[in-house]
Amino acid sequence: MADLKDVKKVVLAYSGGLDTSIILKWLQSELRAEVVTFTADLGQGDELEPARKKAEMMGAKSVYVEDLREEFIRDFVFPMFRANALYEGVYLLGTSIARPLISKRLVEIAAEEGADAIAHGATGKGNDQVRFELSAYALNPDIRVIAPWRDWTLKSRTDLIEFAEKHQIPIPKDKRGEAPFSVDANMLHSSSEGKVLEDPAEEPPEDVYQRTLSPEAAPDEATIVEIEFEKGDPVALNGKSMSPATLFQALNDYGRDNGIGRIDLVENRFVGMKSRGVYETPGGTILIAAHRAIESITLDRGAAHLKDELMPRYAELIYNGFWFSPEREMLQAAIDHSQADVEGRVRLKLYKGNVIVIGRESKKSLYSDALVTFEDDRGAYDQKDAAGFIRLNALRLRTLAARKRG
Amino acid sequence: MADLKDVKKVVLAYSGGLDTSIILKWLQSELRAEVVTFTADLGQGDELEPARKKAEMMGAKSVYVEDLREEFIRDFVFPMFRANALYEGVYLLGTSIARPLISKRLVEIAAEEGADAIAHGATGKGNDQVRFELSAYALNPDIRVIAPWRDWTLKSRTDLIEFAEKHQIPIPKDKRGEAPFSVDANMLHSSSEGKVLEDPAEEPPEDVYQRTLSPEAAPDEATIVEIEFEKGDPVALNGKSMSPATLFQALNDYGRDNGIGRIDLVENRFVGMKSRGVYETPGGTILIAAHRAIESITLDRGAAHLKDELMPRYAELIYNGFWFSPEREMLQAAIDHSQADVEGRVRLKLYKGNVIVIGRESKKSLYSDALVTFEDDRGAYDQKDAAGFIRLNALRLRTLAARKRG
Amino acid sequence: MADLKDVKKVVLAYSGGLDTSIILKWLQSELRAEVVTFTADLGQGDELEPARKKAEMMGAKSVYVEDLREEFIRDFVFPMFRANALYEGVYLLGTSIARPLISKRLVEIAAEEGADAIAHGATGKGNDQVRFELSAYALNPDIRVIAPWRDWTLKSRTDLIEFAEKHQIPIPKDKRGEAPFSVDANMLHSSSEGKVLEDPAEEPPEDVYQRTLSPEAAPDEATIVEIEFEKGDPVALNGKSMSPATLFQALNDYGRDNGIGRIDLVENRFVGMKSRGVYETPGGTILIAAHRAIESITLDRGAAHLKDELMPRYAELIYNGFWFSPEREMLQAAIDHSQADVEGRVRLKLYKGNVIVIGRESKKSLYSDALVTFEDDRGAYDQKDAAGFIRLNALRLRTLAARKRG
Amino acid sequence: MADLKDVKKVVLAYSGGLDTSIILKWLQSELRAEVVTFTADLGQGDELEPARKKAEMMGAKSVYVEDLREEFIRDFVFPMFRANALYEGVYLLGTSIARPLISKRLVEIAAEEGADAIAHGATGKGNDQVRFELSAYALNPDIRVIAPWRDWTLKSRTDLIEFAEKHQIPIPKDKRGEAPFSVDANMLHSSSEGKVLEDPAEEPPEDVYQRTLSPEAAPDEATIVEIEFEKGDPVALNGKSMSPATLFQALNDYGRDNGIGRIDLVENRFVGMKSRGVYETPGGTILIAAHRAIESITLDRGAAHLKDELMPRYAELIYNGFWFSPEREMLQAAIDHSQADVEGRVRLKLYKGNVIVIGRESKKSLYSDALVTFEDDRGAYDQKDAAGFIRLNALRLRTLAARKRG
Repeated sequence: MADLKDVKKVVLAYSGGLDTSIILKWLQSELRAEVVTFTADLGQGDELEPARKKAEMMGAKSVYVEDLREEFIRDFVFPMFRANALYEGVYLLGTSIARPLISKRLVEIAAEEGADAIAHGATGKGNDQVRFELSAYALNPDIRVIAPWRDWTLKSRTDLIEFAEKHQIPIPKDKRGEAPFSVDANMLHSSSEGKVLEDPAEEPPEDVYQRTLSPEAAPDEATIVEIEFEKGDPVALNGKSMSPATLFQALNDYGRDNGIGRIDLVENRFVGMKSRGVYETPGGTILIAAHRAIESITLDRGAAHLKDELMPRYAELIYNGFWFSPEREMLQAAIDHSQADVEGRVRLKLYKGNVIVIGRESKKSLYSDALVTFEDDRGAYDQKDAAGFIRLNALRLRTLAARKRG
Repeated sequence: MADLKDVKKVVLAYSGGLDTSIILKWLQSELRAEVVTFTADLGQGDELEPARKKAEMMGAKSVYVEDLREEFIRDFVFPMFRANALYEGVYLLGTSIARPLISKRLVEIAAEEGADAIAHGATGKGNDQVRFELSAYALNPDIRVIAPWRDWTLKSRTDLIEFAEKHQIPIPKDKRGEAPFSVDANMLHSSSEGKVLEDPAEEPPEDVYQRTLSPEAAPDEATIVEIEFEKGDPVALNGKSMSPATLFQALNDYGRDNGIGRIDLVENRFVGMKSRGVYETPGGTILIAAHRAIESITLDRGAAHLKDELMPRYAELIYNGFWFSPEREMLQAAIDHSQADVEGRVRLKLYKGNVIVIGRESKKSLYSDALVTFEDDRGAYDQKDAAGFIRLNALRLRTLAARKRG
Repeated sequence: MADLKDVKKVVLAYSGGLDTSIILKWLQSELRAEVVTFTADLGQGDELEPARKKAEMMGAKSVYVEDLREEFIRDFVFPMFRANALYEGVYLLGTSIARPLISKRLVEIAAEEGADAIAHGATGKGNDQVRFELSAYALNPDIRVIAPWRDWTLKSRTDLIEFAEKHQIPIPKDKRGEAPFSVDANMLHSSSEGKVLEDPAEEPPEDVYQRTLSPEAAPDEATIVEIEFEKGDPVALNGKSMSPATLFQALNDYGRDNGIGRIDLVENRFVGMKSRGVYETPGGTILIAAHRAIESITLDRGAAHLKDELMPRYAELIYNGFWFSPEREMLQAAIDHSQADVEGRVRLKLYKGNVIVIGRESKKSLYSDALVTFEDDRGAYDQKDAAGFIRLNALRLRTLAARKRG
Repeated sequence: MADLKDVKKVVLAYSGGLDTSIILKWLQSELRAEVVTFTADLGQGDELEPARKKAEMMGAKSVYVEDLREEFIRDFVFPMFRANALYEGVYLLGTSIARPLISKRLVEIAAEEGADAIAHGATGKGNDQVRFELSAYALNPDIRVIAPWRDWTLKSRTDLIEFAEKHQIPIPKDKRGEAPFSVDANMLHSSSEGKVLEDPAEEPPEDVYQRTLSPEAAPDEATIVEIEFEKGDPVALNGKSMSPATLFQALNDYGRDNGIGRIDLVENRFVGMKSRGVYETPGGTILIAAHRAIESITLDRGAAHLKDELMPRYAELIYNGFWFSPEREMLQAAIDHSQADVEGRVRLKLYKGNVIVIGRESKKSLYSDALVTFEDDRGAYDQKDAAGFIRLNALRLRTLAARKRG
């Protein structure tokens, strides 16, 4: 920790909760550093004013509380959904995509405040430390990053509680004992990990779920929604134009009510181990289905297949924390280029966990009745062309087969 | 058609239905060729004896009727599921994967029978002609392939009916008029296309669905199943070992009852246009979820991510008809190599269209409590390692950031 | 050919040579169509005025002769070199990249002239027909393309000569017999194929080579050149700013004199067979080495490796004729994004077939003495970080090894 | 270093040079550990007996000296060349591919000797530490790895010399001062890095090159060689069957004499910085050209293009040290599958740095005169097929163009 001794001013990603409050105090007491707190509203659903007051009360030098919901959805979530990004086939990257934005503001505030370091509350075992720090270094090569969970000597819950008591940090009753699992949340998703979830052979208890009804508890009647897209992004819901965050929140509400977006997975962390998580992404689960549907009629096959091939890499980059990297930006340039004509309307039926596409239409549709019909197509397609198409595609296979026969 | 004049003996993929019966007669009457029929049971659910009798009655030179269900599931479906193959993000390739097996038998029977051609009933607009013919050419470079739909002069339903009547081919009542849609089926899936489905803005009518209850009609109680895997393939269901086709049929039954596996999509055909299909893949939809779940604990990250990156190409190859190609075989070699330790049990909850993983366990699990726990891990993982890991991953990003700053 | 009967006016890609002169006459006499000729200077080294006069003399309705060298190098060759594109590891795509530009002008001229078709002189066995036609269709979906080599009844050289004589088309002496090989050329390369080159076991005769000295005949003294880049494109040679085509021509001259850029290969055509070609790409061979060298100090690893992974697909797209496709444009968007800081100077030694990089420097260099030195680096890099980096990278491998040991 | 205190017995990768001799002594004196030395002959060209004697003299507990040249070429170099592996377009991975074999033997010897650790002499800035350690961990998850350059307190050349003098380690005269550059060598290549090479704008001095004549100094007469392949590996040279290492050494000799295989590059290290290296790979440069040439006539296009797309990833894995990883093995399985029919003979002309393919032939050739000829092909290929092939390939592009036109 010797190398932290000369830190004078730190911008801390501060939630207002017990852990980051302890960090705040630790930075003040152990490093003798001034602390600036930064609390972002990314739609996690917590109230922010208590965090502001607590930070002020604990002697934060400056207190930043910001509503970043629109920026989060518009500049991070929507670009990612243009790619249909899924990590390991199932995870919609809800935690991963929030970290770069938080780091960006930490680094910007550090510059404004003349701070020489930033700090975060992620542990040394997870992906979030990597995402915070790679983002920060990519934006300011000289920034110092303090990750107290890797550095301090507090080893157990008991140590933490003792430290809190010693420093008069208020401890909510339910935080005295071990939490049964650990939660992260933003507008895109809630994730739960650890403790009762550590055995992947065991079904998660129902009380793990934070923001969705279970499919069983959802209504017996389906809900129909219509999403309108422009340039690959949703712009209106049921015919009503909305800002990105407003629209996304409405999708979340629909998803929650209809039991949509729960997954229970074992994923591979960038730091090398497997972990088990339970995620809820109600609006995102609706959105990815709708986006694929509007692409299905407006995106050319060549573009669509290239996107599908690039997607796993793109998702991996975001998962691993490389949002601010040249290769993610290159892939984004390719993806965004493909979205120019991805526009139109998708109708979906939401029913007890299911997202069912029931209609898509677009002025930019590439779907052609005339081409595809079993009926007379009046010359749109000459079936005899298929013979030549097949024969030339087969030519190399026939050459191989002739060799095999010898 | 001049080039078909010298055809003497043809092996026809014969379903027993009206269309392939007309082809049978057309080959006999127009080409003056002997016809051998081949009817395969791939689990499509039709009875085969009527096809045999009809072929015999129509003067087929030889009649082959074969139950290929085990071979189909074991040597085609399961290898494909090892790859988690999805075409365009959603289609489980139910039609695509059946064609190579049919072609293989057509080519083999042609050799046994001394036939100089094979024939199929696929149209000139679809993918199936390509799949049949590429497979056939890859197995016998000199085989001739007759695709009457591309070659004959029958242009409309009326022409067909007239031809049938003229040749005393019995016409089922419901075939006189236009079918409201066209169906293909095998053990893996049913597909419906055309006519009432041609407008992708319109929801498919309920009567399109052949082999699944709707989620709404499915039971209000969830069903729990447990699938056991060895080397990436399912080998037992609810603790009972089963042959591939038996197991797969049981999954189909579970899927059907629980409203699982319907999709309504617009896809990009290899021949260049978009088409709309409604597919039902009840057992396959359960299987892919289960396979991903068992992989999630037994497959290394490097292997898993490589598989995810290769998958879209692999799926495209199968969709386009290149099952019997060196590149599909190369990818299969890579995929199969990864499956050596993919074994264990997955428990799933099936409920009104949902396939929910609720547990996975394996003697070959790579998941480690000790590594991942938030608790004391007794030295399994040194959090300080993460600092170096991050700093070296960040090094190039910091160098870039320093350049940007100038 | 029935479907060509109503063609009224055709724009023909016209070289002035015997074959396209025969096509010109054939279009006039057999199709009774008006013919507009288009002759482009792409740096092939032929004089254009004779082509103009010949077209006029043969009754072309309009005659277009255009110098497209700058556009060719700037908008086609340079973008492709940003990708370091190599087809099958060796071919610099010299013929492939010229076709889209020619098609673009054919389609534009057809629009200006009110022509209803375009025509080209490529045969039915090669890639060029595909490239011409895919480009044309991508720019005008209704354009008709006439490819006389696929359509006419002239089957042999003798037929052609007879047709020419019958129509008073002057026949150069050396064209009466069979040419010993067939040549295509533009500023990027010359290619030779066919006849004496058809046996890939035989070394090409020296007289196949058109635009390069052999390494043996090249000077015994090396030549040093310095190329300056901006945004990935060469902008100056030996300190002197030049236009794209001027610079490229100068590189060609250097390459020719130093025996650079010959390759003898067997390649896989898009239409399905292997063919043997002898290509000379003197300037291009220098340029790709220089471009990789300037990238080596200015391009981040993430960007560089992504480019390397995308390159084979990009090259294949150009080879197959998909320049004007969404997927090529998507890849170009990604590649171009990476080139913003690819600037600086590369020094090369050219010697008897060798292109040897001997220096590269850039204000945007990412190479850092301080980081890499074996000497004391004053804290730029902490070697202890490597331990954590390795341990976390090893974690999954150790988990696997533990499982293997059981 | 506390965590090394309990190490009792170490297997050291020992070259016999000054640096690893200092490490040997340091392990004995500072860690109080028994040291077993392992010296491998990978064809680096050093004599091994002096290393044995020196190790014995310095009190090594056991001394292993092994000739691994055949295993190195057969099981590591040849499999890699099947992939045509090039890192960043130019580097033949000469250093990278040797490390896994050394680690494998270190781990095996540690097991035989009951040692609890292995040690290597790679620094904390390079890739070799990563390659050694990832390989070791992949083979024994519990092995401990000691990398003294990261751990000890010797900071400068002076410190080292002092330590050597204090411990009576003989110091060769030329090692007292700073070496002008640092060298690594094995049968595949020599690399030189550091010091006089640290400025990438400066041409390397001629004395950097260890194992090749310069092109200028090479003979004025070309040398012709013929290499025969089976299953993708070279098996005979100029008609004479040879063992892998014998054959490779002969290629090295040909390459050295003809000035072949020098490259001067700036590469991106896995640990995050760029470094400049000068590599000589005489035999490897010949082999990769020959291998591509035999593939060009025996490998199907689908296989060849898939290999080209997978190659950059494969090369990156080897470069980064992941030889013993599931994903490298998966790619190897795919690559090896493709090589079954890669056999035949390639003739090459070697001349002053050039490797020129002048002929290839194979009983398994897929090249067909009949298909490709401009002459009458007697029906092998119907040019009219190309029309349908193009029209269906164009269909989606025409649909796009129609949309663009609106």
